[in-house]
Amino acid sequence: MSRLSYEAFLAQRKEIIQQEESRALGADIVLTEDETKVNEFVMKLKKAELEEGFNAPVEFAPSRHFFQVLDKISQSPLYQLLRKMPKGGILHTHDTAMGNTDAIIQATHREHLWQSGDFGGSNPIHYRFSKTKPAPIDGAGEWHLVSDIRKELGSEKYDLNVKNLLSLFHQDPHHAYHCVNHVWSKFAQIFITLEPLVTYKPVWDEYYLHALEQTYADNVCYVEFRGLLPPVYDLEGKIYTSEEIVQNYIDLTEQFQQAHPDFVGVKFIYAPLRIVDDNTYAQYFDTAEKLHKRFPTFMAGFDLVGQEDLGRPFTDVNDRLLNMSPTIQFFFHAGETNWCGLSDDNLIDAILLGTKRIGHGFAAVKHPRVLEEIKKRNICIELNPISNQVLKLVDDMRNHVGAILFSDNYPVVVSSDDPAFWCASPLSHDFYVAFLGLASARQDLRLLKKLALNSIEYSAMSPAEKDEAKQKWTVAWNKFIAETLKSIS
Amino acid sequence: MSRLSYEAFLAQRKEIIQQEESRALGADIVLTEDETKVNEFVMKLKKAELEEGFNAPVEFAPSRHFFQVLDKISQSPLYQLLRKMPKGGILHTHDTAMGNTDAIIQATHREHLWQSGDFGGSNPIHYRFSKTKPAPIDGAGEWHLVSDIRKELGSEKYDLNVKNLLSLFHQDPHHAYHCVNHVWSKFAQIFITLEPLVTYKPVWDEYYLHALEQTYADNVCYVEFRGLLPPVYDLEGKIYTSEEIVQNYIDLTEQFQQAHPDFVGVKFIYAPLRIVDDNTYAQYFDTAEKLHKRFPTFMAGFDLVGQEDLGRPFTDVNDRLLNMSPTIQFFFHAGETNWCGLSDDNLIDAILLGTKRIGHGFAAVKHPRVLEEIKKRNICIELNPISNQVLKLVDDMRNHVGAILFSDNYPVVVSSDDPAFWCASPLSHDFYVAFLGLASARQDLRLLKKLALNSIEYSAMSPAEKDEAKQKWTVAWNKFIAETLKSIS
Repeated sequence: MSRLSYEAFLAQRKEIIQQEESRALGADIVLTEDETKVNEFVMKLKKAELEEGFNAPVEFAPSRHFFQVLDKISQSPLYQLLRKMPKGGILHTHDTAMGNTDAIIQATHREHLWQSGDFGGSNPIHYRFSKTKPAPIDGAGEWHLVSDIRKELGSEKYDLNVKNLLSLFHQDPHHAYHCVNHVWSKFAQIFITLEPLVTYKPVWDEYYLHALEQTYADNVCYVEFRGLLPPVYDLEGKIYTSEEIVQNYIDLTEQFQQAHPDFVGVKFIYAPLRIVDDNTYAQYFDTAEKLHKRFPTFMAGFDLVGQEDLGRPFTDVNDRLLNMSPTIQFFFHAGETNWCGLSDDNLIDAILLGTKRIGHGFAAVKHPRVLEEIKKRNICIELNPISNQVLKLVDDMRNHVGAILFSDNYPVVVSSDDPAFWCASPLSHDFYVAFLGLASARQDLRLLKKLALNSIEYSAMSPAEKDEAKQKWTVAWNKFIAETLKSIS
Repeated sequence: MSRLSYEAFLAQRKEIIQQEESRALGADIVLTEDETKVNEFVMKLKKAELEEGFNAPVEFAPSRHFFQVLDKISQSPLYQLLRKMPKGGILHTHDTAMGNTDAIIQATHREHLWQSGDFGGSNPIHYRFSKTKPAPIDGAGEWHLVSDIRKELGSEKYDLNVKNLLSLFHQDPHHAYHCVNHVWSKFAQIFITLEPLVTYKPVWDEYYLHALEQTYADNVCYVEFRGLLPPVYDLEGKIYTSEEIVQNYIDLTEQFQQAHPDFVGVKFIYAPLRIVDDNTYAQYFDTAEKLHKRFPTFMAGFDLVGQEDLGRPFTDVNDRLLNMSPTIQFFFHAGETNWCGLSDDNLIDAILLGTKRIGHGFAAVKHPRVLEEIKKRNICIELNPISNQVLKLVDDMRNHVGAILFSDNYPVVVSSDDPAFWCASPLSHDFYVAFLGLASARQDLRLLKKLALNSIEYSAMSPAEKDEAKQKWTVAWNKFIAETLKSIS
C-alpha cells in the first residue's frame, strides 16, 4: 500500500476535474471572444447567488419551493439576463397552460359568460359561454351570468378569484398539497374548469395568440406544444372538428409570424389523455392518422398525457401504438414518477416504441439500460424542473435528476410544461432554475447556448427548417451578446 | 422509418427488464430453496406496502419525513421482520450517537451531576459531573445540582426534557428546521451538550456497552464506528488519554464479546473534526500515528467529520494526509452535500487520497468520473438514508441517490450514522427505508442478503476476521431463515 506523491495527486486531481468538465453538457461549445466576456459576467452573477446560498442555504432560490421564491427570482439580475437571452424553442408545453392567465381573466369580462358554483364554495365552478342560460349540470349549482356575479363581488375581486382558481400557487405549498395525487387532482381540476372558458372560439384564438406573444417576449423563437384538441365551440352552436382546430392553429401561427418575422414557428403534438377506455383509444388513433395525413409537417407527432401513476400503462396499448403509421413520430411522456419498478417501466416501452423524445424522464436515472439506450438512440429528455417540483416529484432543485443528466452530456432540453398554472414565465424561470440549481457551479454560458441549440436540434423540424431556425436564432443570439456586452462595458 | 413487430417488441422489452434486473445490487445472489420461500413472504410484505403507497402516496412511509412515520413504521410487519434479520455490520456510525438516549437519561439520575441553564430557556444547557460546584462558564447561568432540579420539575418531566434535548425529533420537522445549516447547528449542539454527560467515565463505559447491547438486539453482529476520542474524565480529576480511551474500548468490547460469543466484534475509526486550525490538524495526525502503532488492528483508520459545506475542504490538508503512514487506511466522509462543483469536490480528493470507503457520497451521482473510479477501485459508499433526510439533503426517500447506486450494482452498504439523535433503531430503520424506499419494487431478499454480505466484505477486517465474521453471520442468517419459514408455514 502506498500513497500518491503530492505532485502526482495534484496532477490527477486536475485531470479528473478536466475530464468531468469535458463530459458536462455544453463542453463542446467554443465561445467567441465576445461570448467569453459575456460569460464572465454571467458567471459573476451565478457565483454571487451560489455564494449567497452557500453561506445561507435558505436564501438559495432553487433549494426552495418555487412559490416561495417567485418574488426573489424576479429581482435576480441573473434571471433578468436569462429573460433577455434567446433560449431557442420550448419543446414541452401544453395547449391551455402555456400562456399566463391574463388572457383568461380578460375573457371573463366578455358577455354571454355563465357560471355555476361560488368561489370558495364546496361545488366546483363551471363556466359556459351561451346566449341563453345553459342546461343544468348534475350536482352543480344554478347558472348565473358572470357579469352579475362580477357586479356583486366587485370587478377586481372577481378577477383575483379567477386568477386563484386557475393556478396552483399557494403561499404554503408544502401544507397545501399533501401528496402527488392531491396536487395532481387540483392540477387536473384547473384544466377542467378552464376548458369551457378557453374553448370558446373567440377566446381560443385570443389565448393562443396571447401565449405566442408572451413566449416571443420571453425570447423564445419556436414552440412545439402538446394539445388535446378539446371541442372548441361558439355561440351559434358550432363545434369545431379536430381538423378545423389544427387548421385554425396553423392560420393563427401564420398571422403571428407575419407580425414577427424573426419568430421561427410552431408545431403541434397530438396528445390526448392516457386514462381512457379502449374505444376512446381507437378514436385517438383515427384522429392521429387523419391529422397526420392532412397536416404532415405542422402535426409533429403523437403522445399521451395525464398522471402517469394513475393512467393506463403503455403495456395496455403497445400493440396498437406499434400499428400506427410508421411516419407518425412519438414524443412520449414517460417516467414522470418517483416510483421505481412500477409505472416507471413506461420508460422502457417508450424507447422500444421508438419515441423521438421523452417527456420528463424523471425516473430514467434509476434505469441503467434506459440511460444507455437514451445515449445510443440519441433520445432527447425534455426536462421541466419547476413542473416536477410543483407536482411533487422533487423538493430541492439540486436533487433534480437533470443535474445528473447535465453532468454527463445526455441529450436534454429544458422546457416549462404548464407555466401558466404556477405563475412562471414561458421558459426563463425554468432556465434560471436549471442553470443555477441543476447545473454544476462550473457550468457556464456554454451550457445555456447548448440548451438553446438542443431545442432546435431535437425539435421535430425538418433539416431545412432547422437551418432556418438556427439562422434566426443566431441573429438574435449575436444581438443579445452584443447588447449585453455594451451594457456591462 | 419502421416500428418493431409486437413480438420483437415484447422480446426486447423482456430482455431490457432482465438486463436491468441482472445489473441491480444483489442480482448475483442465488437463493436456496428455503430462502426462496422466505423471499416470497418478504415480497408479499413489501408489495403490500408498495400497493398501499401507490394508491395513497401520503401513506407511503419512505416518501415522508422519518419523524412523521416513526409510529407507522414500528407497526409495519416488514419492519418487524427486518429487525429480526441478521443484517451484518454497521460500517458508519458515531461514538456518542449510536446507542439510544436511555443510557444518558439514566446517567442524569447519578449523583454529582450539575447543570447550568434551564430547559426551554435561552441559555444552552451545560452539564458536568463534579464533587463540588464546577467553575462558572462564561455567559452561562448558575450551576445547580440536577438532583435538585429533578425534584423541582418532577422526575418524569425531567427525563422527558433530557430526551428532547438530545434528539432532533420534532412533530413538524419541515417547519422546525428551515435549512441544512440550521439543522446542522442543532445537531452539533446535541453533541456538545451530550459530551460532558457521556464522557464521565462511569457513563462512558455504560453508554458504550448499552450501545453494543442495542446493536446486538437489532441483529447486527459487527460495528465499525467513528470516534473523536473526547476527553473522558472522572470525579478525581483524571483525564484519560486517547490511548487509554481506545484501550478502554477494546476492554469493554472483549467483555461484551465474552457475554455474546456470536457477536463478531468492533473496530474504531479515529475521526476528529475537520473544521479546526492547522495546529490542531497536526495534533490529529500525531494522535492517529500513535494509535495506529499501538492498536494496528482495532484502529481501522482515519476520517474527518463535521458539516462538509462549512468545514475545511480536503484541499487544505491533502499534502499532509498524503504524508500519513501509508498503512493508515482512510474512510473519508465526502460528498455529504446538495451542492455541485463546490464542497462536493471533496469526493475527488477522497478517491485520490486512496479512501477505502466513502461516507455518504451523496453527491457522487453528479460526478461521472467519480462514479467510474468508485467501481474501478471498488470503493464502498456508506449510505445513511435517514441521516440524509433528517439533515436535509433529501426529502422523499425515493429520490435518495442510493436508488441509483442500487440499480447498477455499485459497492454500497446501508448504515445509520447517528440513530440515537433521530430515535431510530441501530440499523433496522435504515434497512427498511432502503429496501422499501430506495430499492426498485423488483429488488428482493437478494438485495438484503447482499447488503449484509457487503458489510463484511467492505469492512476493515482482515481476511481471517472476515471469514470468521461470515461464518457467525451465516449461522444467524440460517437460523433466521428457518425461524421465518416456521412462522409462515
